[in-house]
Amino acid sequence: MSADLEPTSPSIDDIVELKAMRALDERGLRTLFVDARSANGFLPRPVPHSLIERIFELAQLGPTSANTLPLRILFVETPDGKARLLPTLSPGNVEKTTSAPVTAIFAADTKFFEHIPRLFPHAPQFRERFAGEENAEAATQFAVTNATLQGAYFMLAARALGLDVGPIGGFDKPALDAAFFPDGTFKSLWLANLGYGDDTKLVPRNPRFDVDEVARFL
Amino acid sequence: MSADLEPTSPSIDDIVELKAMRALDERGLRTLFVDARSANGFLPRPVPHSLIERIFELAQLGPTSANTLPLRILFVETPDGKARLLPTLSPGNVEKTTSAPVTAIFAADTKFFEHIPRLFPHAPQFRERFAGEENAEAATQFAVTNATLQGAYFMLAARALGLDVGPIGGFDKPALDAAFFPDGTFKSLWLANLGYGDDTKLVPRNPRFDVDEVARFL
Repeated sequence: MSADLEPTSPSIDDIVELKAMRALDERGLRTLFVDARSANGFLPRPVPHSLIERIFELAQLGPTSANTLPLRILFVETPDGKARLLPTLSPGNVEKTTSAPVTAIFAADTKFFEHIPRLFPHAPQFRERFAGEENAEAATQFAVTNATLQGAYFMLAARALGLDVGPIGGFDKPALDAAFFPDGTFKSLWLANLGYGDDTKLVPRNPRFDVDEVARFL
Repeated sequence: MSADLEPTSPSIDDIVELKAMRALDERGLRTLFVDARSANGFLPRPVPHSLIERIFELAQLGPTSANTLPLRILFVETPDGKARLLPTLSPGNVEKTTSAPVTAIFAADTKFFEHIPRLFPHAPQFRERFAGEENAEAATQFAVTNATLQGAYFMLAARALGLDVGPIGGFDKPALDAAFFPDGTFKSLWLANLGYGDDTKLVPRNPRFDVDEVARFL
């Protein structure tokens, strides 16, 4: 009805309405969360490097403290690589890992701070908080926390691109670090088998908490 | 062409093709990763409890080691809650947190192991690995790692439901724990402001690594 042809700013309610429309549909939520299960075995089909690299690129966009990005990943896929990996696993994790076309070793780079001037260019001095032997423990803790965030992003990004993920915590950490990260700079966190899962190996989903048992509004 | 009317099992290639079709489309990937940015301010509109609870329920489906689910969340939204929270923040985080309709405090429950018999019913004895004073440090480390995973799932689930997230690591952890978790069982991890972001407050995205700088195939 208005004859005013000047462009106007959208209202806050308009912007909120548009932002809410970013939400995934039920299909996307099923892929990421509702239907997704930890794979216990894999179909004998490869995963192309290009797909793994795309997962990495997406996951790396997720937030880390001061953009420090301390996650490092070794993707083990060759017979030689698997032969070094399998002896470090708990017995119950050997068969499923053997069946996986690729196993990601997530590790934290305890020297991540050397990259701060490049990754967080407006505050390069943040590096000094972690440099030096006296800060080594704080640096390791910070690296582990933020690399753990990134590993979680990676697992959800893998699901987002249609893969199944089988995370593994049962392995001999010192033995794995000695086998793959002998110089001591990288600390392994956990492993994730990647591929297309053999759903006949799934077990029933374990229980979850009710929201009000573990979360509260204040 | 076959006259055989017996049902046949799908081939492995058929199953893989179906599984690959679970992948999100570009729109979903933009919502989760490509377009998503850490909010530095929020539009003055509330987030309904029902939406936050739905985010929690989705996030809680993500994998944790032995389904231990050690994440606890306090959603701070009232003036009283904010008044207790703001003094614990670094000065640069006060204004953005003031503008957020709700701030999630992510914490790890160091007594998570008491719930193992219920959450991981086929191996209730896993509880014993963490019970007792002699295992307290291992229990805390395990709780922190797995709660960190869950906090990452939560932030991506919030984005998946159309919200903006602003994670905050700059706060006085002992002061915050004293203000909100005085009995010492919960350890705060980080905070996340939640709401519909004020995009005029965004800063340019920081650089990321090239894949081959931080990941390698073996």
